[in-house]
Amino acid sequence: MAALGRRSVREREGLFLAEGPQAVREAVRFRPDLVDEIFVETAAATRHADVVATARDAGLAVREVTADVLAAMCDTTAPQGLLATCRPLDVPLADVDLSAVRLVVVLTHVRDPGNAGTVLRGADAVGADLVVFSSGSVDAYNPKVVRSTVGSLFHLPVVVGVDVPDILAALGRAGITRLAADGGGDVTLPQVDLDRPHAWIMGNEAWGLPAQIRDACDEVVSVPIPGHAESLNLAMAATVCLYASAGVLRAP
Amino acid sequence: MAALGRRSVREREGLFLAEGPQAVREAVRFRPDLVDEIFVETAAATRHADVVATARDAGLAVREVTADVLAAMCDTTAPQGLLATCRPLDVPLADVDLSAVRLVVVLTHVRDPGNAGTVLRGADAVGADLVVFSSGSVDAYNPKVVRSTVGSLFHLPVVVGVDVPDILAALGRAGITRLAADGGGDVTLPQVDLDRPHAWIMGNEAWGLPAQIRDACDEVVSVPIPGHAESLNLAMAATVCLYASAGVLRAP
Repeated sequence: MAALGRRSVREREGLFLAEGPQAVREAVRFRPDLVDEIFVETAAATRHADVVATARDAGLAVREVTADVLAAMCDTTAPQGLLATCRPLDVPLADVDLSAVRLVVVLTHVRDPGNAGTVLRGADAVGADLVVFSSGSVDAYNPKVVRSTVGSLFHLPVVVGVDVPDILAALGRAGITRLAADGGGDVTLPQVDLDRPHAWIMGNEAWGLPAQIRDACDEVVSVPIPGHAESLNLAMAATVCLYASAGVLRAP
Repeated sequence: MAALGRRSVREREGLFLAEGPQAVREAVRFRPDLVDEIFVETAAATRHADVVATARDAGLAVREVTADVLAAMCDTTAPQGLLATCRPLDVPLADVDLSAVRLVVVLTHVRDPGNAGTVLRGADAVGADLVVFSSGSVDAYNPKVVRSTVGSLFHLPVVVGVDVPDILAALGRAGITRLAADGGGDVTLPQVDLDRPHAWIMGNEAWGLPAQIRDACDEVVSVPIPGHAESLNLAMAATVCLYASAGVLRAP
């Protein structure tokens, strides 16, 4: 079961791990249809009584196990006594009704699981409609990605494994403006019209977006840096862009 | 020298490590007065010729060493062939002219070096005037903190080791509004007047701000979360607050 920490095993078994009370609670609340089994450490069952009760009410199997068994199943060293095995939640791009979408985040070749998870968490925070992990990005079901989403993975539609040109083309056909987030952008964030449906295209944490992807977007947008810092990291830049999109930082 | 990775040794030696080209370049450009020595891997000297030349022009000692020697000196596994030993840059709180300060960030009991460094980087990005590491926070010279500031540590005044009540009192006396960032805030970010001098008081990544600190602040402010995410992480929340403070996300 700890083998679910490895991508090849996850793909063969068709299950991934949600570790810890926050992730398991959100899985049970938002996507009980995807939960295969829940494992709770006997000594922690009381502490997690609310999650366990909600799971049982939803007809889910809950197994009590010892701390050693749970630790052997986990990727993390501190699973806090609770984990769930879940079926993949990604949807095919063709099944997403892009005409109803207002805000999208596309991760292109993002490799660091903590960054990817944090960006997904930010997308969920502002109520984005869709997150896309391009082919070449970290596996959305990597245990570190799942952990750093803190349950947000279960909250919104996720598409995985699409080549970047294909997702850009699909967004374009749907009339969704493609905004490449790039420190060397032609325009700065406050100059961009964020009242139309749009997608933030985020690049790799080290090398950013290649020219080919930037050129295929409608606008290349940089976050203003009025101070001395040379750049923002991926998660910071995405958070700022997403909060600008949500328009919730301005007084009404 | 690798022992500089440990706080006790850093304090005894009075030096800390800036690892990698970005950190060393910013140290040389912004605070050459603090640089003790620069070490460059012989094989990387050409690649880092600009930094080395700037350092020599500033009268700094540059030593060529082998990759093994450099690796033994470093905390990181990938120092990219360049590091500097630096004298501490923090200033006593009493030496800061708070009457000239418009934007401050206070890290209270922040323990994770990556979070602390990222918040400092964000403060630098928006042009904040001061960053304070409270007593009980991670050491500002921890190699992981230094690395995650990506050079920003050398860009702005930093105060370390002050007890939280003391820094809050000093800010209050100087007429700087103390804004506690807290998910359970009484007001939301767009409701706050950010045109006056103010300080963001950021809490520990796991338990946030204790009631005692919140009560000692002028306002307790939450970042709006229009979506489903339960919370933002510390670095995301700080980035959003700081960009709201900078006022650079609104069209002019």
